[in-house]
Amino acid sequence: MIFRTLAIVGVGLIGGSIALATRARGAAQRIIGIGPSGFHLEKARQQGMIDEWHSELEPGVHNADAVVVCTPVDEVIGQVRAIHCFARPNALITDVGSTKAVIVNGLARLLPAGVCFVGGHPLAGSEKSGPQFADANLFENRLVVVTPHGHFSPDAPRSVAAFWQALGARVKEMTPEDHDKAVAITSHLPHLVAAALAAMLPLELRELTATGFRDTTRVAGGDPDLWTAIFQQNEAGLAASLEHFQKTLGCCFTGWGMRLDTDFVQALLKDAKRNRDALGS
Amino acid sequence: MIFRTLAIVGVGLIGGSIALATRARGAAQRIIGIGPSGFHLEKARQQGMIDEWHSELEPGVHNADAVVVCTPVDEVIGQVRAIHCFARPNALITDVGSTKAVIVNGLARLLPAGVCFVGGHPLAGSEKSGPQFADANLFENRLVVVTPHGHFSPDAPRSVAAFWQALGARVKEMTPEDHDKAVAITSHLPHLVAAALAAMLPLELRELTATGFRDTTRVAGGDPDLWTAIFQQNEAGLAASLEHFQKTLGCCFTGWGMRLDTDFVQALLKDAKRNRDALGS
Repeated sequence: MIFRTLAIVGVGLIGGSIALATRARGAAQRIIGIGPSGFHLEKARQQGMIDEWHSELEPGVHNADAVVVCTPVDEVIGQVRAIHCFARPNALITDVGSTKAVIVNGLARLLPAGVCFVGGHPLAGSEKSGPQFADANLFENRLVVVTPHGHFSPDAPRSVAAFWQALGARVKEMTPEDHDKAVAITSHLPHLVAAALAAMLPLELRELTATGFRDTTRVAGGDPDLWTAIFQQNEAGLAASLEHFQKTLGCCFTGWGMRLDTDFVQALLKDAKRNRDALGS
Repeated sequence: MIFRTLAIVGVGLIGGSIALATRARGAAQRIIGIGPSGFHLEKARQQGMIDEWHSELEPGVHNADAVVVCTPVDEVIGQVRAIHCFARPNALITDVGSTKAVIVNGLARLLPAGVCFVGGHPLAGSEKSGPQFADANLFENRLVVVTPHGHFSPDAPRSVAAFWQALGARVKEMTPEDHDKAVAITSHLPHLVAAALAAMLPLELRELTATGFRDTTRVAGGDPDLWTAIFQQNEAGLAASLEHFQKTLGCCFTGWGMRLDTDFVQALLKDAKRNRDALGS
């Protein structure tokens, strides 16, 4: 057992999966869900996903040993500040946001030194959203990036790492800036590219798509507002990786852009296959 | 039963799946495999995928009612010309190439009028290759595009359509040119984009990829030479769809390319989600 009482702010796909995994692995004695929809939270309680729920932060977090914020990234700073006001002084606070620099550096400016906060990002998820898609094994063998910052308690990263490991995940420490540069390449750019491909599909060509198109664009089924907020918070990282990507594509054709540069494209496809094969299915 | 004797030139993933599906659905009495590797073809024969095999075209096709060419696209024209020489005068010849205009128009210039040829393209496949990945159900409920041309026998499209329908597929007729424009958007551009994403992944970021990156880049595991040949044969279609795609991405950032155009990106993500949701999983 890692925590006596764990509070989860935002019981969607990720928050719900944290609740189920915590329950399945006995990582907390009591799980509290906090969110705006009493209907969904009461259903989650009846299904045993959480033990109690609150629509307000204060009663939800004031007895918690640890609070995990699973809201959209643009709400994390506000939630963490409010949790810091309402929770016990030594309560551990973390988040699961897909961006880290804006959140962690913003909170370092806004919270007193030594607060027990550390940013986190489980590299797991789905294009689906909502607690009905929650999965107790979502974090099994997946990587969680934890982003320590000197302004906060040095104990927080260790406690959060122990919690994620209890849920079956591997943990890696990175600076918020390195994290954001990395996920720009591994997640944010692929999402934008998939969306651009999906958006340019004319209605009459839908029947001409096969598994390749479906795989390549699957993430484009994700929530547009969540992803707009992610892109905004990692604007610089996304811009840099997009520039590199556009340059690569620009080299595929020569002359007035109408002749394929066969040698370049063949080399690109070989590099791509080597990298992709190394990832496995 | 559609054919007495079906010859398949190139018994890889697609050729092997045609053999298995033909066998499973009784669409031909006898199946002949033709290809360079006696080792693989003998194995396929022993497993019952084919009834006999030949390394040379002439003995392989001279008794066939129908011949399906399943070679890389840049070999199709040469194979079909040779088959026309060696096969019975009224034997049906078709192919499964991912491009159609270069192949069909090229053959229309090279073959006598009235030959029983029609181009075809089953929109099914995999990033894997080889007969060991063949699947008797690969074409079930999948679309096969058939591309008639006035130079050839008007009976060929109907016979080929009946064959594919017997294997469980749906059939759609298109001109070779319309086919190539369409698959540039639904298949060739997504493949190039997936490859560019996979190629730019630094070694040290491999551990930071999750299911999203894997889905988006899955097709990049395909054979580089096969796909270089496909891109060459659909150079104009690919160039046009790539230009549209790059313009779309170019609109995502404003100013000197560093500020996200939030309204544009949010609208793009919404269009993308609507289109992607319509395709199903």
